[in-house]
Amino acid sequence: MTRLQERSSLVRLPSYGVQDSHSSSNKYKSILLRKWRFESRYSTHQSATPTSTIGKARIVESVGEGVVDIKEGDHVVPIFNGECGHCVYCKSEKTNLCEGFRVAPFKTVMENDRKTRFSTRDGQPIYHFLNTSTFSEYTVLDWACVVKIDPEAPLKQMTLLSCGVSTGLGAAWNTANVQAGSTVAIFGLGAVGLAVAEGARSRRASRIIGVDINPDKFVKGQAKGVTDFINPKDLDKSVHEKIMEMTGKGVDYSFECAGNVDVLREAFLSTHDGWGLTVILGIHATPRMLPLHPMDFFEGRKIVASVFGDFKGKTQLPQFARDSMRGVVNLDGFITHELPFDQINEAIQLLVDGKSLRCLLNL
Amino acid sequence: MTRLQERSSLVRLPSYGVQDSHSSSNKYKSILLRKWRFESRYSTHQSATPTSTIGKARIVESVGEGVVDIKEGDHVVPIFNGECGHCVYCKSEKTNLCEGFRVAPFKTVMENDRKTRFSTRDGQPIYHFLNTSTFSEYTVLDWACVVKIDPEAPLKQMTLLSCGVSTGLGAAWNTANVQAGSTVAIFGLGAVGLAVAEGARSRRASRIIGVDINPDKFVKGQAKGVTDFINPKDLDKSVHEKIMEMTGKGVDYSFECAGNVDVLREAFLSTHDGWGLTVILGIHATPRMLPLHPMDFFEGRKIVASVFGDFKGKTQLPQFARDSMRGVVNLDGFITHELPFDQINEAIQLLVDGKSLRCLLNL
Repeated sequence: MTRLQERSSLVRLPSYGVQDSHSSSNKYKSILLRKWRFESRYSTHQSATPTSTIGKARIVESVGEGVVDIKEGDHVVPIFNGECGHCVYCKSEKTNLCEGFRVAPFKTVMENDRKTRFSTRDGQPIYHFLNTSTFSEYTVLDWACVVKIDPEAPLKQMTLLSCGVSTGLGAAWNTANVQAGSTVAIFGLGAVGLAVAEGARSRRASRIIGVDINPDKFVKGQAKGVTDFINPKDLDKSVHEKIMEMTGKGVDYSFECAGNVDVLREAFLSTHDGWGLTVILGIHATPRMLPLHPMDFFEGRKIVASVFGDFKGKTQLPQFARDSMRGVVNLDGFITHELPFDQINEAIQLLVDGKSLRCLLNL
Repeated sequence: MTRLQERSSLVRLPSYGVQDSHSSSNKYKSILLRKWRFESRYSTHQSATPTSTIGKARIVESVGEGVVDIKEGDHVVPIFNGECGHCVYCKSEKTNLCEGFRVAPFKTVMENDRKTRFSTRDGQPIYHFLNTSTFSEYTVLDWACVVKIDPEAPLKQMTLLSCGVSTGLGAAWNTANVQAGSTVAIFGLGAVGLAVAEGARSRRASRIIGVDINPDKFVKGQAKGVTDFINPKDLDKSVHEKIMEMTGKGVDYSFECAGNVDVLREAFLSTHDGWGLTVILGIHATPRMLPLHPMDFFEGRKIVASVFGDFKGKTQLPQFARDSMRGVVNLDGFITHELPFDQINEAIQLLVDGKSLRCLLNL
C-alpha cells in the first residue's frame, strides 16, 4: 500500500463505536453487525505497512490521485452509503442511493479496480465491508464515501454521523419531513429511534410517543424530546389501539426501528388515516413478508423505507455537523460508554442488555 | 319525498353506465359492481313521487335547504367520494378522503339524519349505496357528493368523470404526478388503466407500456398513448424481467389496475430502484396479503393506493371537465357501447367478455 489508487483516501481510525440496531461504520469506528442478515468478513488484522505518506497524527493520512475535495489532515466522516455526485441517482432529488457507492452488504472490494486494499501477512486478501472497512486502525475508502467536516466539530460526537444517528434524524427530517405541530410515534428507542426523536423534537413536533419494552429507554427518551411513553408489556390492548386512544385519530408519522414485522404493522395502524406515513428503519432479517393487505393502503396511509435517513452524505452531512455544533441538534447522550478495544465483548454485552446506545472502543 | 332535507339534492339520471373494474356511479348512471367485496342492495324500484319541484327535464331537479353552490337545472356529476370542504381531511392537501362523505361501501343512509330517501311501495326502506344511489331515475345526494360542471360539457362523456376515468387519470396526475419524459407501465387496460394512459400521455410521458392478457385491449391502448404492449401470455419470463429488458432499469411509475396481488408484485418490481412508484388502483377482493418483504422497500421503491385518483371532487372535477372540452384530455373511446336499460345483462356480458369499457344504459 505504498501508493493509493485513484480516487481513494487512507484514513486513520483511532477508535471504534458499537451500536445496537444496524451494521454501522463511522469515522472513529468500524463495523459490528447483529441484524443485517449476513455474517461479514471482519478485517481482524490489517497488514498495510505505513509508508512515508502515513503516520501523521491526522485524520486523513493521504489521498490518491484524482481526489480533489479531500486532502491530508482533513477531518472526515466515512459513510457506508456513498455519494459520487454524478450518477443518475445522485443527480435525482428522489434518492440517496448512489449507483456505485450505495450500501451494498455483499460488495467486498473497492469500486475502481474490484480489488481489496487489505491482506494478511502471508498475502491472503482481507475483504472490504460496507464501503468503509473501518474495523482497523487504518482504512482505505473511495472518495465518494468520505465526507469532509468542520475541523472544529467534536470528533467523538462526529462518529455518530456515520450511521444510526444520521439514519434516525434524517428519517424525521428528510424521509418523513416532520412538520411543526405534528405528532410522531417511535417504535424502538435504541440509538436510531432516539435520533428520530431528536429529529422530530428539532422540527417542533407537538407530541412524540416512544414505544419500547425496556423501561430504561424512557429516561433516555425524555432527554431527546419524547413526551409520552408506551411499554407494550403494560398494555391490555394493542399499541395502535392505545395510540388511537391517546391521539384521537392516530399520529401523523410513525417510525419502526425494531426490525420486527408485527411491530411494523402496529406502527402502520397507529397513523392517521388520509396521510399517516410509516417509515421503516429496522432491518428485517426474517423471511416474513409485510403484514399488510393491499386494501389497507386505500385508507390513505403510506409506508416507505429510509436508508441512511435519506441523507446525501457528501452534500448534506457537513451541514448536519454544523447544526450539531450550533445546538440545532443535540447529540449528547448517544455515546453512553467508552472502552478499550480489547473489551469489545463487554461492549456487545452492554448492547444485548439494553444498557448501551453507543460504546466507543479506543484502539 | 315532498321536501328535500337540508343540504341534499334531487338529481335526475336518465341513463346509466356500466364499467368493469370498480363499483361505479356517475351522473347518468348507477352502481354496478363486481369486485368490491360485497353485494349491495340495489334500489330496483324508486318510489319517490315527483312533486312540484320535480319533473323538469333538467339535471338537478331541486335542492334542499342550505345548498348554496348548486341550483335547480345545474349540470352536475355525482361523486361517490365526496368533499365537504371544511373537515380536517378536506382542509389537508394530503388526502381526498372527506371525513363524512368519503367512499364508504357499508354506509347505507344519508349523512345528515342517517335515514334513507327511498322506499318500496309498501314502505320498506331501500338503502343508499356509495353516497350516490344512482341506480334509479331520480336520486337524492348530499351536496358534498354533487359537482357542478360547465353546462356546455358533453353530458354523456361527463358520466366518465364520476368514477373510473377520474380514478385512472387522477392517479397519473395527482397520485403519481407523472413528469414529462418519464416512463410508465400500466397493468390492466380496462377503463381505469386506459385512463391512466390518457393521464400519462397528457403529461407527455416518453414511454407508456401497457400490460394485459387480452390483446384486443392493445388497439384501444394505442389510441390512448400506449407505446409498447406486453401480453404476459406471450412471455417466457416474468413481466418485470421483460420490462427491465425494455427499459434498462425499470419504469418511473407503475399502475396496478387488475386487483391481483401477483400482478401487484410484478408492478412493484417493474419500477426503477431509488424512486419507482407503484400506484394501487385495483380492488383486491381476496384475503391475500401484500406479497412484499419489508426489505424490498430499502431499494427506494414506493407503493401507494389511489382513491378516486386523489381528486378532491368538488374542487377539481370542474377543471377536469373543462380540460376535456379543451382537448387537454381526450375522453373519446371510453364509452364503447350504449344499450337500453332492459339489456343490462347483455351489458354485463360485454364486460365479462372484455369487449366493453363503458356501456351506457338508457332509461
